[in-house]
Amino acid sequence: MNNVIDTILSHRSIRKFEEVPLSDEQIKTIVECAQAASTSSFIQAYSIIGVKNPATKQRLAELAGNQSYVAKNGHFFVFCADLHRHEVLAEMEGVNLDDTLESTEKFMVAAIDASLAAQNAVIAAESMGLGAVYIGGLRNSLNDVSELLKTPDRVVPLFGLAVGYPAQNPDKKPRIQPEHIYHEEAYETDSETYIRQIEDYNRVISAYYRERTEGKRTDTWTSQMAAMLSKPTRMYMKEFVESKGFNKR
Amino acid sequence: MNNVIDTILSHRSIRKFEEVPLSDEQIKTIVECAQAASTSSFIQAYSIIGVKNPATKQRLAELAGNQSYVAKNGHFFVFCADLHRHEVLAEMEGVNLDDTLESTEKFMVAAIDASLAAQNAVIAAESMGLGAVYIGGLRNSLNDVSELLKTPDRVVPLFGLAVGYPAQNPDKKPRIQPEHIYHEEAYETDSETYIRQIEDYNRVISAYYRERTEGKRTDTWTSQMAAMLSKPTRMYMKEFVESKGFNKR
Repeated sequence: MNNVIDTILSHRSIRKFEEVPLSDEQIKTIVECAQAASTSSFIQAYSIIGVKNPATKQRLAELAGNQSYVAKNGHFFVFCADLHRHEVLAEMEGVNLDDTLESTEKFMVAAIDASLAAQNAVIAAESMGLGAVYIGGLRNSLNDVSELLKTPDRVVPLFGLAVGYPAQNPDKKPRIQPEHIYHEEAYETDSETYIRQIEDYNRVISAYYRERTEGKRTDTWTSQMAAMLSKPTRMYMKEFVESKGFNKR
Repeated sequence: MNNVIDTILSHRSIRKFEEVPLSDEQIKTIVECAQAASTSSFIQAYSIIGVKNPATKQRLAELAGNQSYVAKNGHFFVFCADLHRHEVLAEMEGVNLDDTLESTEKFMVAAIDASLAAQNAVIAAESMGLGAVYIGGLRNSLNDVSELLKTPDRVVPLFGLAVGYPAQNPDKKPRIQPEHIYHEEAYETDSETYIRQIEDYNRVISAYYRERTEGKRTDTWTSQMAAMLSKPTRMYMKEFVESKGFNKR
């Protein structure tokens, strides 16, 4: 165990921050670390928008479903899949790249690029004593978010990232056991084994809640997931993503 | 600068490895670090397949466009977007989750989840003195890859990750300058500024190549990108992803 691994394993999402803004130096380091991540064929198909303005943060908090920590934090980042840059360079180079830019493949490339960068940002922030939480809630209202942040076509805001000095110290919920997430040589095709592993995990999660609530809460991971996924959400996403010029072919 | 940030900023993709297999302990630590990443609403919508078998690696190397380092490395990981687990839990809980699982939103969630986990794996590996390279080339032939790795419906292999002891020490190509990737308060809407930044970056990249090739190579980033993106690739992706039950609505 080295202290990089220690930082990674100590991750918890922080949803309450001291009201201390990040310094420009901290922001610069976080962005530099984000950019150090790998990028598919050097395409660099993402952008980061940093928000300090309290009114903008407040509006984003509302759009994300009234999550207070979107407004109250040290700094708020928005990570975007971005092929606008490549549309501009197509004009500069006098070529038409629409077929490529509108492909499902390239939306995957851009989303993966942005996510690798974001995770570097999180680890860098945590190594500086900061905490962070991803805000998928921005995807509740991407039309409003992109209007607010003035993102052009071929840009899709994927998620926010609230960063700041932690004002809480939450527990770490146990992840699915590694033997279920990690498959040796090929995907597990024995359905008995597969289901038994999920049932084992259910017992771990139930015990976790039971301990922490003096027996009041005992739900399983599968019941939580079934409840959450039974309500289809953000079903406008296909249309939105295509309207921005992605996933069209 | 702390040594976590130092590790992140020292990243280079390694494409030549010593032929020394990773230990089980190293693999375990890398997977544990991957799983420590945030996951959207605790959905854990990804899987990792680890490949040691030389014949499987050789086949993956061919499918990825004859990249030797897919076969020759310390260990090969494949990161997959995975909602198969959630389809199984739907059966366990007696609910139908198809609408949700087939949504564009949930494919984004799964791809982002997998990517955050992968980047933790990379940073953890690098902190142990290992090197790594992402293998997007697997997406050349996902039908063959998923057959080889026996991935079921609702699983899409997104990319590989070759890890091992580095047998090379490559340069780091300069990234786009931060003021172009990072936008303050809102996306840059002044197109003159936007284009000037890209032109500035072109000069940086040209100078980088000129120095390293004694003036033989002077191409710009935009000319590289225009050439690469002018050849539409992996245009079967929309159909493939939908055939696996993603992005359908």
